[in-house]
Amino acid sequence: MRVLGIDPGIGRMGYGLVRSQGNRLRTEDYGCVETRPGPIGERLVRIYEKMQELLQNLNPDVVAVEQLFFYRNVTTAFHVGQARGVVLLAARQAEVAVAEYTPMQVKQAVTGYGSAEKGQVQRMVAMLLGLPAPPRPDDAADALAVAICHLHTAPTMALVRG
Amino acid sequence: MRVLGIDPGIGRMGYGLVRSQGNRLRTEDYGCVETRPGPIGERLVRIYEKMQELLQNLNPDVVAVEQLFFYRNVTTAFHVGQARGVVLLAARQAEVAVAEYTPMQVKQAVTGYGSAEKGQVQRMVAMLLGLPAPPRPDDAADALAVAICHLHTAPTMALVRG
Ligand SMILES: [Mg+2]
Repeated sequence: MRVLGIDPGIGRMGYGLVRSQGNRLRTEDYGCVETRPGPIGERLVRIYEKMQELLQNLNPDVVAVEQLFFYRNVTTAFHVGQARGVVLLAARQAEVAVAEYTPMQVKQAVTGYGSAEKGQVQRMVAMLLGLPAPPRPDDAADALAVAICHLHTAPTMALVRG
Repeated sequence: MRVLGIDPGIGRMGYGLVRSQGNRLRTEDYGCVETRPGPIGERLVRIYEKMQELLQNLNPDVVAVEQLFFYRNVTTAFHVGQARGVVLLAARQAEVAVAEYTPMQVKQAVTGYGSAEKGQVQRMVAMLLGLPAPPRPDDAADALAVAICHLHTAPTMALVRG
């Protein structure tokens, strides 16, 4: 199974493709999409088009994203929401199912501890994927983490929503 | 000038086309797009496609939306954000400029009072557009109000952002 993890944001969107290979996990690609400050419409088009590109080139079976319930404030929630909206739109149009996980579910699935620290999660991500060091930048690591979460969780819990 | 006002939301999106005709304002169309509860991706596709339809059929020069800074809570901000994101994406792809106004600017522009009540705003919208009664539903009235705001404000303040 090929899972594209996405960590949405308006300035920076992290992405990471993780696939299961036997009983191992491997990543084929990960990185960040940055949008320079400017008119919101332009930034959303860039995120949308990059998402379409990722869906086309990486050909995932599922897109995994975090479902945050506790944003720092309404402004943050609003801005992340706008970016996430165009990401989910692109996934739906490409007929790729979307699975959502809370930060706690991601930590639990990756490290075994629901309240693991960011650094612990990133080190586990590196270990699970056979990488020499935690992936950079942070947003890419977060994206890989949620993808791994889906691969660890999905066989046992039907959380995939199209 | 033809202005398409949008009141974004995930369950209900209000829209209203207002045009200037000499020194009068007239509406050609207004209403609501409803999306039934279900997978978020489906709802966002419906909003996006309806927005594309409105842009195509009503041919506005500008899209006007409210910029809220005070959402009831982060969950609301997040959900409205997602819907608004695909609306802004569609406008940008259609190369239609987007102007954003705060609720206070809308009230001020429509009624002359920055702290007018909802009912007062709706009655002024009806009067300005030559309608026999306030437009229904609420979200359509809100959309018409922000469109009127742009028509009243834009000549004096360059708030149009592409
Ligand atoms: Mg409303």
